[in-house]
Amino acid sequence: MNQTLELLKKRKSIRKYTEEKIADKEMEYILKAAMAAPSATNARDWSFIVTRDRDIINKMAEANGRDSNPLKGAQMAVLVCGDLSRSCSATDYWIIDCSIAASFMNVAAESLGISSVWLGTWPELNKVEAQRKLFNLPVNIIPHSIISFGHADEDPNRPRIEWEADRVHIDKW
Amino acid sequence: MNQTLELLKKRKSIRKYTEEKIADKEMEYILKAAMAAPSATNARDWSFIVTRDRDIINKMAEANGRDSNPLKGAQMAVLVCGDLSRSCSATDYWIIDCSIAASFMNVAAESLGISSVWLGTWPELNKVEAQRKLFNLPVNIIPHSIISFGHADEDPNRPRIEWEADRVHIDKW
Repeated sequence: MNQTLELLKKRKSIRKYTEEKIADKEMEYILKAAMAAPSATNARDWSFIVTRDRDIINKMAEANGRDSNPLKGAQMAVLVCGDLSRSCSATDYWIIDCSIAASFMNVAAESLGISSVWLGTWPELNKVEAQRKLFNLPVNIIPHSIISFGHADEDPNRPRIEWEADRVHIDKW
Repeated sequence: MNQTLELLKKRKSIRKYTEEKIADKEMEYILKAAMAAPSATNARDWSFIVTRDRDIINKMAEANGRDSNPLKGAQMAVLVCGDLSRSCSATDYWIIDCSIAASFMNVAAESLGISSVWLGTWPELNKVEAQRKLFNLPVNIIPHSIISFGHADEDPNRPRIEWEADRVHIDKW
């Protein structure tokens, strides 16, 4: 098994982080990975609000509700947003495009030894509106998800389900 | 830069494939990567229809419309489906969860030297219905995307936009 397969297999959602900071170069690698993600008709219909500012991260956490408490210890947060002014004619592909970009960030961070957890915003419209208000977003920009980053301060070796036979259908349903 | 970052950066959507087959073990790695993906509240609200059968792949291509012609040369196709009977209370997270699982498949395949392209199904409801009909899916199972896999028979070294400054917002919009 190669390094990337091992990484995908071992990655866990991590909610507690050490005080270790995220370097400029690491932030850049993570954002470049997002921008290398495919998108429907190559629309690249996303934008990323990135911050390592404690106060801003805490405000994002407050606005996103209790499930987003991991952000309060995060060293970096990215609010992934869809940009409807850039999306293709089947507009709702923005939801998938933002998800792919965020996934690529998760994987890129993991490869740098930086853990992360995905904190849902869309489709919970109260959370979407709270982030929109916090960042005073234009009408075409839709908050999608917050990714919370930091070096793990919890055991990432929790057991995981590797294979679920009932999720795999060969040739037919 | 590590192997995974290089891979994310170099990955391209590949639409032409050689005759080289996808081995059982490779298929298994790719599906395991999907099943290692995070999902909202860990609902794991996906199922995967996987096939290496030429006839079935061609039927999937026909049902998914002209943009899905790459499937006609693919060595493997996976129809990623959401399972609404497993999704969390904010049901539409299934769309994001399926996207993450499919992204993990793209990355896993790439690490094995297998190229892929993402062929949209949802949110184009005519395509969703066509796949549903083809596989006679239960009502709780929603076709999300088809991922087309094979060894590249085109130059993957097309230029790509590495960085778009207007997509990155530091600390504020």
